[in-house]
Amino acid sequence: MSDAKLQGVLLALSQVARQLSAVPSNQPGPDANCVKLNTNENPFPLPMMVMQSALAALERHYLYPEDDNLSLRDAAANAYGFSKDQVIAGNGSSELLGLIYRAFLAPGDSVAMMSPGFSFNRKLAMLQGARFLEIGWGEAYSLPIGQLLLGPAKDAKFILLANPNNPTGTFVPVADIDSLAAQSDRLIVVDEAYVDFAPDDALRLINRHSNLLVLRTFSKSYAAAGIRVGFGFGHPELIGRLRNLQNVFNMNLIGHAVGISILSHRAAYDENHRYIKDERHRATIALSQLGFSVIPSHTNFLLARVPPGQDGNWWQASLERQKILVAVFPDDGLENYIRVSIGTKTQMDAFLSAARDISESLKMQSLPVKHR
Amino acid sequence: MSDAKLQGVLLALSQVARQLSAVPSNQPGPDANCVKLNTNENPFPLPMMVMQSALAALERHYLYPEDDNLSLRDAAANAYGFSKDQVIAGNGSSELLGLIYRAFLAPGDSVAMMSPGFSFNRKLAMLQGARFLEIGWGEAYSLPIGQLLLGPAKDAKFILLANPNNPTGTFVPVADIDSLAAQSDRLIVVDEAYVDFAPDDALRLINRHSNLLVLRTFSKSYAAAGIRVGFGFGHPELIGRLRNLQNVFNMNLIGHAVGISILSHRAAYDENHRYIKDERHRATIALSQLGFSVIPSHTNFLLARVPPGQDGNWWQASLERQKILVAVFPDDGLENYIRVSIGTKTQMDAFLSAARDISESLKMQSLPVKHR
Repeated sequence: MSDAKLQGVLLALSQVARQLSAVPSNQPGPDANCVKLNTNENPFPLPMMVMQSALAALERHYLYPEDDNLSLRDAAANAYGFSKDQVIAGNGSSELLGLIYRAFLAPGDSVAMMSPGFSFNRKLAMLQGARFLEIGWGEAYSLPIGQLLLGPAKDAKFILLANPNNPTGTFVPVADIDSLAAQSDRLIVVDEAYVDFAPDDALRLINRHSNLLVLRTFSKSYAAAGIRVGFGFGHPELIGRLRNLQNVFNMNLIGHAVGISILSHRAAYDENHRYIKDERHRATIALSQLGFSVIPSHTNFLLARVPPGQDGNWWQASLERQKILVAVFPDDGLENYIRVSIGTKTQMDAFLSAARDISESLKMQSLPVKHR
Repeated sequence: MSDAKLQGVLLALSQVARQLSAVPSNQPGPDANCVKLNTNENPFPLPMMVMQSALAALERHYLYPEDDNLSLRDAAANAYGFSKDQVIAGNGSSELLGLIYRAFLAPGDSVAMMSPGFSFNRKLAMLQGARFLEIGWGEAYSLPIGQLLLGPAKDAKFILLANPNNPTGTFVPVADIDSLAAQSDRLIVVDEAYVDFAPDDALRLINRHSNLLVLRTFSKSYAAAGIRVGFGFGHPELIGRLRNLQNVFNMNLIGHAVGISILSHRAAYDENHRYIKDERHRATIALSQLGFSVIPSHTNFLLARVPPGQDGNWWQASLERQKILVAVFPDDGLENYIRVSIGTKTQMDAFLSAARDISESLKMQSLPVKHR
């Protein structure tokens, strides 16, 4: 095999792709026996009717999925009160984020995200060769509207924020998003992945602002992370261009069937959402009693500052030794925090029990030797 | 809603996206009661073991799919005799084609495809703002190696061909691909979507040529078009860059489970593939008797020149009135052809019976009036 030939092929890559490394294959993930509280899944069964739709769809395995996600988009439009030309459906909202980055960003362009935010966006900007501007949240995680209008974000091709925000779990009033969209001439992308655990949402603003795009996913509140179902809502002129850019058959027919069925059975999740909010409340109190400082959450996770003396990485490693997986964000200025997804009561008991054990052993270590 | 604001947002789109139209939503597809012989699906059940894997995976709906498609890539690497760093897995090979176009083509670049070929590639080139060079097949659909090395394709960022080819159904000797890859310093992408119906394949060349990329799909021979499973095989330095460019969680967990299970049960399809080749033979003879001129096929479809007097569109419409769907390619210089997928015996009987009826009524019309 000629290395010169390989170099020639790699040189034919476009400017951005040429600078990418060839990523090594991942190592297998952590032990499947761990309590998984690190990626904000919703570990509850699908409603029976949704599962039955999936099983029925599986029988059509040999047929291509419906073109243009037509029935799914139609169902989402009806469920949320839009026309289907205002809806794009994706293989998770991650696919839709990727499409937005591709549509708006060429090498040298810039995009602005409220930070700390969802770090996946940093990678998407990198893949376009774009500059990624991180705009800090205001006082108490408020939206710094003035800074977004007149600061460095002014020249960004679009502004992205998540509401509720990941990983902070905080929520800005929808009136502030309304105000930002009204005053800005940029596209404002609002990622509402966690909105079903929050008190309000920005979807109703879609018909008021042609520069607003709202993303939704069924990965969190609808327990379908493994199926990959996401939506974008916005002006038909923008949505139609994103659909034009989208690859054919981007979702499989299980995704279509589950998506359509969830849209018809959203009320079946009410109890699940109440349960998660109750567990969130219980875990917040229990962690506070252990010396954690928990940011009030509007999501299905908690961001908690660990007790003084250790950092987030230390707690993550200590918990993993007890088969509990949580997330940390040392690159986002959150060195002293852990993020804990809200799982079942059994999972949360296991987590809280491990956290208590670790706290106890820390206390033991800090006692003078003679008292041990 | 301010139109000026919308115009501002659309102006922020990148050069290529700005020129895209906002596609209107599709109309619902043809009647589900039609005999569907227009998109080369394989209308047979999945092997029982594969279906059971899908059902088991569905129970894990709330968990994100495995990162980096690790187990699926590992399974494909083992099945075909590669390392997993030589394999990329896609939501159908269509996703992988899209990635290759994104990796290699910037506005103004060019790509060359053997033509007539898979028209989806024309769209992918357009989405990159790239020139799409269509290189005609040689005598009897042979590979015009000299022309690919010295003609207009010489400056293409990569050269794409399908073997067997769609929509012609023809097959070029793998030795010719070997020779092209050896002599060219371009990347050669070989789409082997239909290879399981052909006498040979180019996968064994991967370890010989660092400028060869082979695509596979489970949509045709493995009856999983609705599940979306595709693979690319090539040099780790190229595959690793494409994986770096790929969106997270590009496949859902049903795709993973079905893909892994099919790889373990490929022999279970032998009978199915024999059946399809037998029906292909039977349909070739029957169509020839009706005055069609059928190109010998190495796929699960037939490209047939219709009898003189009508064109492909006319036959497609006449068949659709009898609830039979076939494909036509008037934009590819194939005005007088129809493409017919090979389905079940029942489906093929329905198609052949309709074709016979249409032929008969054409003969009746061409008789002098007094003999009617």
